[in-house]
Amino acid sequence: MNPLYTTLPTTIFETMSARARATGAINLGQGFPDSGWPQDVLETAATALLTASNQYPPMPGTPELRRAIADHYRAHQNIDLDWQTEVTVTSGATEALAAALLALITPGDEVVLFQPLYDAYLPLVRRAGGIPRLVPLAPPHWQFDDAMLAAAFTPKTRVVLINNPLNPSASIFDRASLELLATYANRHDAIVISDEVWEHVIFDGAQHTSVLAIPALRNRSVKIGSAGKIFALTGWKVGWMCAAPELTAALARSHQFLTFTTPPNLQAGVAHGLAKPAAWFTDMRAGFQNSRDNLVTGLTAAGYKMLPSAGTWFVSIDLAASGIRHTDTVVADRLLDAGVATIPVSAFYAEAPVTTTLRLCFAKHDETLDAAITRLAEAL
Amino acid sequence: MNPLYTTLPTTIFETMSARARATGAINLGQGFPDSGWPQDVLETAATALLTASNQYPPMPGTPELRRAIADHYRAHQNIDLDWQTEVTVTSGATEALAAALLALITPGDEVVLFQPLYDAYLPLVRRAGGIPRLVPLAPPHWQFDDAMLAAAFTPKTRVVLINNPLNPSASIFDRASLELLATYANRHDAIVISDEVWEHVIFDGAQHTSVLAIPALRNRSVKIGSAGKIFALTGWKVGWMCAAPELTAALARSHQFLTFTTPPNLQAGVAHGLAKPAAWFTDMRAGFQNSRDNLVTGLTAAGYKMLPSAGTWFVSIDLAASGIRHTDTVVADRLLDAGVATIPVSAFYAEAPVTTTLRLCFAKHDETLDAAITRLAEAL
Ligand SMILES: CSCCC(=O)C(=O)O
Ligand SMILES: CSCCC(=O)C(=O)O
Repeated sequence: MNPLYTTLPTTIFETMSARARATGAINLGQGFPDSGWPQDVLETAATALLTASNQYPPMPGTPELRRAIADHYRAHQNIDLDWQTEVTVTSGATEALAAALLALITPGDEVVLFQPLYDAYLPLVRRAGGIPRLVPLAPPHWQFDDAMLAAAFTPKTRVVLINNPLNPSASIFDRASLELLATYANRHDAIVISDEVWEHVIFDGAQHTSVLAIPALRNRSVKIGSAGKIFALTGWKVGWMCAAPELTAALARSHQFLTFTTPPNLQAGVAHGLAKPAAWFTDMRAGFQNSRDNLVTGLTAAGYKMLPSAGTWFVSIDLAASGIRHTDTVVADRLLDAGVATIPVSAFYAEAPVTTTLRLCFAKHDETLDAAITRLAEAL
Repeated sequence: MNPLYTTLPTTIFETMSARARATGAINLGQGFPDSGWPQDVLETAATALLTASNQYPPMPGTPELRRAIADHYRAHQNIDLDWQTEVTVTSGATEALAAALLALITPGDEVVLFQPLYDAYLPLVRRAGGIPRLVPLAPPHWQFDDAMLAAAFTPKTRVVLINNPLNPSASIFDRASLELLATYANRHDAIVISDEVWEHVIFDGAQHTSVLAIPALRNRSVKIGSAGKIFALTGWKVGWMCAAPELTAALARSHQFLTFTTPPNLQAGVAHGLAKPAAWFTDMRAGFQNSRDNLVTGLTAAGYKMLPSAGTWFVSIDLAASGIRHTDTVVADRLLDAGVATIPVSAFYAEAPVTTTLRLCFAKHDETLDAAITRLAEAL
């Protein structure tokens, strides 16, 4: 057995959800919503299931969905993609990440990553043979600067992996940051893999800037997207990778031997959803922003100090500023006893963890958030 | 980019299906059926899509499906599995293969494989860092013996990958062969990954023997199954891995960072299907056996010599015995011009290919098979 896997723990999300199920705690840990999905997307998929083919669709995705992805990004992010040579549908964003890292890393390559990082990143980079170079980001703004990139890039850097918006910190890298990154990527001839699954879930009128919208990154980047996050259907596991044709050819080879293809009826549902009018996306954002505000207002009133949340379904308690001296894992355990599951942000670090912030998922009904606020207020 | 992927071609199945679509040829290449799926399985999935959760199910699969898999194998193959510690649901058998190979191979390990081999095997073994040791199998029986295993196993052998029933040769490894393999696996402390996706599609009253039914392999094997093959729903991409608890723990770690989980509504449909009465499986087999016989009878009458087909949706023309001197790839091209897409079996070899057999998929309506027979008869 590969020692990487025998020593790896179960993902924190699964662990916390299992503990929440076992204890009956309100689950604000693992990021999934309890409403907000479009009924017509479900119906399109159900109709396709009953009336269209359930056999292998084309390996890189149905033409219908690949076209819808290209059209969607043209309309929403002003990115021009050729659907036939630049779009590959995957079985979720995790598969896209795995496919991209396996395709783009040659053992011994260095990979620049930013901490906090989603817990799949490091095992995947390591299993692909990459050597991680970690850039530490710090609260409350979680940004990188020139000196941090200068310290991380070396002549061996071949791949950079970013998450934008960034889960768990709920922060955004703006155009200027991406342009700084582009300078380094070009200088070192590195490819940027950009996990943009939260691209649509951004608040307060913010604009998402994709790596593909940065001219100096357009042909050296892979943009990863996820229907699960856009349409609040996390179980569907429909994602995609967009990249210049030469990159896409390598990504498709890797994808063809990971899952080969993705259920056609779910692809039909997602294609339908991506064509929704702009107002649907605006309303979706407003709904989650409202939930964020409700949780933040309630917890602030209860005495917690909250960090900003510019996007994602998450907001974090600043434990230090709230006068809580225990580490995030200790606090997470206590809050679970008090009936609320959360995620300690230190779980997103491989080294030198920030242990003073605790992540909460606010993509829940108001009553659920209110009940959680009550329990968290008592626990303080 | 990893050189493994930049030099890899598109899978032969995708290529041939694309050529069939482009030319309007009858597609007897890529293995997918045009009927035979159970309507109630579709309806169960559609109902779950509209009425049950579409959020992340548990990472190793829904309890309902894992229980159904364990119950199914207890009833059909007399194998006792603990659903909680020995069953992991995957997004298709390809993902299961990828997860198992990434989890069980440490770079430098030798992996014993049998040619002809499914085209995903070798790239996955290589990308995982394994060193392939190929055992060549030959028509018409495609079996291995003691001398062949003695030549393939070395002190570095850690993993064995078999496909039983074997695609493309439509042959079966019986209990005696598996017991021989068990001797070598135990002597070398190797783990056997057994791709048993065709376990239910066997003919002429044959019995399938799983590696897990061989006591000497029970705790050192991974059995891979696929709902796509059992229920003729190849686009669903629902598969699973069954293995002893210690192995399952490592497999689950690998799986959690490949796709994490699989759409819950499709899991519900498969759970429903696996509980069908034995008669359904008998009838399914009889239906495909009937299609096999129709194609074999028609092509034999037309002057082709056919190899035996003990299972799978495939049967092969023996080109040499049919008096056709060209290699299988040349014949496949000519037959495509004649309006029938097939798969040259040499595509399933990495070295020293057998080039005298051509694979046809018979999982099609009688009218489709008849039309193909007419075109193939003319082409001869
Ligand atoms: C794959 S489970 C984790 C879901 C998620 O994105 C999160 O909770 O951060
Ligand atoms: C993943 S496409 C190949 C399907 C199949 O099993 C075959 O045709 O052999």
